[in-house]
Amino acid sequence: MNFKEELESRVQYAQETIEAFLPKEEGFSRRMAEAVNYSMLAGGKRLRPVFMKAVYDMLGGTSDVIRPFMAAMEMVHTHSLIHDDLPAIDNDEYRRGKKTTHVVFGESAAILAGDALLNYAYETAFLAFDLCQKEEELRQAAAALKILANRTGICGMLGGQGVDVENDGREIDKEMLDYIYENKTSALIEASLMIGAVLAGADRSVVENACQIGSRIGIAFQIQDDILDVTSSRETLGKPVGSDAKNHKTTYVTLEGIEKAQEEAGKLTKEAVELLEQLPGDSRFLKELFLSLMERRK
Amino acid sequence: MNFKEELESRVQYAQETIEAFLPKEEGFSRRMAEAVNYSMLAGGKRLRPVFMKAVYDMLGGTSDVIRPFMAAMEMVHTHSLIHDDLPAIDNDEYRRGKKTTHVVFGESAAILAGDALLNYAYETAFLAFDLCQKEEELRQAAAALKILANRTGICGMLGGQGVDVENDGREIDKEMLDYIYENKTSALIEASLMIGAVLAGADRSVVENACQIGSRIGIAFQIQDDILDVTSSRETLGKPVGSDAKNHKTTYVTLEGIEKAQEEAGKLTKEAVELLEQLPGDSRFLKELFLSLMERRK
Repeated sequence: MNFKEELESRVQYAQETIEAFLPKEEGFSRRMAEAVNYSMLAGGKRLRPVFMKAVYDMLGGTSDVIRPFMAAMEMVHTHSLIHDDLPAIDNDEYRRGKKTTHVVFGESAAILAGDALLNYAYETAFLAFDLCQKEEELRQAAAALKILANRTGICGMLGGQGVDVENDGREIDKEMLDYIYENKTSALIEASLMIGAVLAGADRSVVENACQIGSRIGIAFQIQDDILDVTSSRETLGKPVGSDAKNHKTTYVTLEGIEKAQEEAGKLTKEAVELLEQLPGDSRFLKELFLSLMERRK
Repeated sequence: MNFKEELESRVQYAQETIEAFLPKEEGFSRRMAEAVNYSMLAGGKRLRPVFMKAVYDMLGGTSDVIRPFMAAMEMVHTHSLIHDDLPAIDNDEYRRGKKTTHVVFGESAAILAGDALLNYAYETAFLAFDLCQKEEELRQAAAALKILANRTGICGMLGGQGVDVENDGREIDKEMLDYIYENKTSALIEASLMIGAVLAGADRSVVENACQIGSRIGIAFQIQDDILDVTSSRETLGKPVGSDAKNHKTTYVTLEGIEKAQEEAGKLTKEAVELLEQLPGDSRFLKELFLSLMERRK
């Protein structure tokens, strides 16, 4: 396996899958679809759908039922970016080097487009039902939907984001920071890996393992983000750096310093790789991907 | 049937059903759950779940599978109220005589609570899967979910709301106004009636009939809202009156005058009742309910 080629090809597949499910820009609600599609096509690593498909393949999944879920996962993620960037929340004008949705479409349109995109994620995921022939497949799709919704909501990403915003500018302790990272960042990565496993028909212990891997990779990913906010440049990141310090934001870096943060991210990644190697199937691609995330510059 | 007693009892059942599914206020995300529950318990007619259950009963449905859908529908509706009231959209400080969510919890919390509530609607609806014993029931739940998501999203409520907000303060023509009413208001009422029918195992023609009824009742309801904005008082409505004129908002009343608007609402209600009487089962309660909505003062 040539990792770089494999990654490119898998990102390309995720990109094509996402594009295949985007809403049509037509009729009275054309402008809303444009805002949704602007946000969905403003770049991004497509990590979550790549994770999902990689686990699905590794565990022997072969159906197209994974595709609406891949797109839905990226839609849930992107919805949260639109709303996080709003003036009332992070007030960010740039993301991935492009103007944010509310800057281009206006604040009210960005609020509604974010809502529409979250909802559209479910509309998209529900297309999986049409691909389910047997009752067992329907049950798997239902289980995948539950994971998606649970990890997105109050007990997942949005809960973490809520606590993050609520404590904006305040010093917070390690316990709360862990809660925020586990939910704001890890929850959707966990869900991606778990959904890949569930749809491949994996048993409960494999799904639980996928959850544990996602938790570690998610937190490591977030710590790496904290580190890059200190060590990278605006040109490389596509957004201003140093924003955590400027906003008096507590991160792993402000709490424990860069060196300890790097150590922690490395330790979590190592654990994730060990858990991954306990799963059946060829785990080489995911292993390389996890390791490469520790080396990323943006 | 004593209509008033029957209505009270059905609203009470809807209320209890909604309360049974609300998120627990605990852990780090307690504040978000509080904001969600504040909004969900700030009053409201519970019309959509009452519609849904009435159709379900009328068509012979007997399972608890309807209950998570009743709660989910009210959650979708309430999510849209939280976001509509935001400073960037309608900037309303009061709804149903109570302070709006962003006034009580802050703007960023209200944005995220609205997101969480929309997502929680799906988390709740997915609980229906656990009540499905047979494959046929799973297929019905899947069909109901598709209706819910479709009527909520870009091609439904949110689409209508987007066009409404986009054209705020501009004069719009009858075609666009019809589109807005059909989607912003009718879409969820259509979905409520359709989901009641689908979960009761109704065939396609009955579901289509339910959709047609919902479309008419929804538009009649919105026209009645326009009329009350001119003829009612703040005390009765629980929110300021005259806001449409103040905001230069095009409505049926500003476009065609009160008399013609009343005529149109009456005509649509009459058509809905005629369509209702073509359905099997005892339609007396729904008929009375439709007629009573024309007499409402708030």
